[in-house]
Amino acid sequence: MNTQAIAVDVMGGDRAPDEVIKGIVETVRTHPIDLILVGRADLIKRELSRHRDVLKRVTIHHAPDLVEMDEKPLEVLKKKESSLYVCAKLVAEGKAGGFVSAGNTGALLAAATFVVGRIPGLERPALATPLPAENGVVILIDAGANAEVKARNMLDFARMGIAYAKILGISKPRVGILNIGEEEEKGNSLVKESHELLKKELGEIFVGNVQARDIPFRMADVVVADGFSGNVVLKSYEGAIKFFVETLKKEMRKKPFPSYIGALMMKPVFNALSRRFDYREHGGAFMLGVKGVVVKAHGSSDALAIYNALKVARKGVQMHLPQMIEEMIS
Amino acid sequence: MNTQAIAVDVMGGDRAPDEVIKGIVETVRTHPIDLILVGRADLIKRELSRHRDVLKRVTIHHAPDLVEMDEKPLEVLKKKESSLYVCAKLVAEGKAGGFVSAGNTGALLAAATFVVGRIPGLERPALATPLPAENGVVILIDAGANAEVKARNMLDFARMGIAYAKILGISKPRVGILNIGEEEEKGNSLVKESHELLKKELGEIFVGNVQARDIPFRMADVVVADGFSGNVVLKSYEGAIKFFVETLKKEMRKKPFPSYIGALMMKPVFNALSRRFDYREHGGAFMLGVKGVVVKAHGSSDALAIYNALKVARKGVQMHLPQMIEEMIS
Repeated sequence: MNTQAIAVDVMGGDRAPDEVIKGIVETVRTHPIDLILVGRADLIKRELSRHRDVLKRVTIHHAPDLVEMDEKPLEVLKKKESSLYVCAKLVAEGKAGGFVSAGNTGALLAAATFVVGRIPGLERPALATPLPAENGVVILIDAGANAEVKARNMLDFARMGIAYAKILGISKPRVGILNIGEEEEKGNSLVKESHELLKKELGEIFVGNVQARDIPFRMADVVVADGFSGNVVLKSYEGAIKFFVETLKKEMRKKPFPSYIGALMMKPVFNALSRRFDYREHGGAFMLGVKGVVVKAHGSSDALAIYNALKVARKGVQMHLPQMIEEMIS
Repeated sequence: MNTQAIAVDVMGGDRAPDEVIKGIVETVRTHPIDLILVGRADLIKRELSRHRDVLKRVTIHHAPDLVEMDEKPLEVLKKKESSLYVCAKLVAEGKAGGFVSAGNTGALLAAATFVVGRIPGLERPALATPLPAENGVVILIDAGANAEVKARNMLDFARMGIAYAKILGISKPRVGILNIGEEEEKGNSLVKESHELLKKELGEIFVGNVQARDIPFRMADVVVADGFSGNVVLKSYEGAIKFFVETLKKEMRKKPFPSYIGALMMKPVFNALSRRFDYREHGGAFMLGVKGVVVKAHGSSDALAIYNALKVARKGVQMHLPQMIEEMIS
């Protein structure tokens, strides 16, 4: 039993295994961490042959099979020799405290729910994503695990988000609910019902409705949403910023001088900005509500993203995030 | 009867009446347009006393009452002497072809639906907003009028969006549905059912699911959503860009030199960008599905926003947008 160890799905993600391995190498060299590399053993050994120091400090767990990015979520449960399934299994058996994967989100949710297993009393695990915001991040939960939910699930999401915020060092997190207006009577029936329930159950830490435009300005530390609208927020932010940056570049090409020199001079500013808004810096999202730490890294994760996802998972394991959630739910 | 005239709610919006009047002055001086100014006649006359040329070319319609920004939507129906109600009434009576208001959105929806009246066969009017996108805009419908809808309403939204796209000069608009994945089986039950219906009814112009992050990259010309998620998209875009720009400014203050000089040199680029992303440039959203042109300008509209909203309304009236929609629906 080693519940401090973290299993890594070496085969998951668009840029696996190369970038995943690179991220692992970087992590092992800079952090005291106990990693179990799950995937094709021959391939992992070959990739690590140039990094003997790392090879000595990790455990390799052979898993010959693979879950493809476009496979149906529940297929993973039949693929018991896939790297994703094996990662979940290691956590279920107490051989690891958590796992990280950049693979298929639906499959990861299925593996987390049915292999790692739900926390007793909790009906729906949810994806919690940190969004860049003033002086830090805001936790958005559910960011896409459940397309359809009930008010009582939203209350669980709130409680899980609070536990997550605490491991980020926010001692008294304020919770809001995503809505399309500030007034209490706004929104669809799910949001209205959830609003009532959160207000009753959470007391003064519940700050009420938060509009999507106010999220980055920290109206709340935790924003609760059903997985459909939560995912819409996440992807709208991603699209808006990508489009803004691309339009900026296009406008610069139209007006090459002296804008071009200006841009060069602004380089440190642009670098700071891209660090701030780069999903890779935030290290992926927690799949909360299961009996182990599960971190979903972005599908196109590179070494940096994997490195940060491993750091996030390590923190979750060290701080006993699943146990914290279990206590909040019960 | 003058169905080319446009009524303006002079009293609606956070910056009314001053900025509304300024926008009117600018419009009348640069466009052949027939405006009916609705609000307190004494106040309008006083504001226009310095602009005698404009005063001579507009009609003033006295409306002593006012709908407040935070009033319940249906209250407007009792306030028959409010500027908003009177605007809607002028359209209903055929004295104007359309109206523009920067006031209370819910009240505007109520006035449009119950005073101007729905197009026969259409159950739910919807708000259609142009979002900045590659080489133009993408039309998002419903951007917030209906928090809860059915699949058949989504089909109406699609058809209304097509008519709108046509007045923007897109002869064969491609229609997509907002979803949280690209695969057909993704989403909540409303989206799945709507997907089926749109596919069946619209044929090849229906391009399927569009994720929020792909909207600005023109995966479709018209993106259909329920009013809750549509509003979430709209406000997420607004928030993301506002936060990005503020973070850029903050980073610049941290690194004043030579970034500051760089920013000055990039001024033309930043100006072009802010024109591109400024809501005021897009002139407000159409409330589609009613028997007249109804344009909702942003609540904090200034003169420029009103000017553009009037231009949009004028185009809708000239191109007989309500009739186009009536033909598409029947």
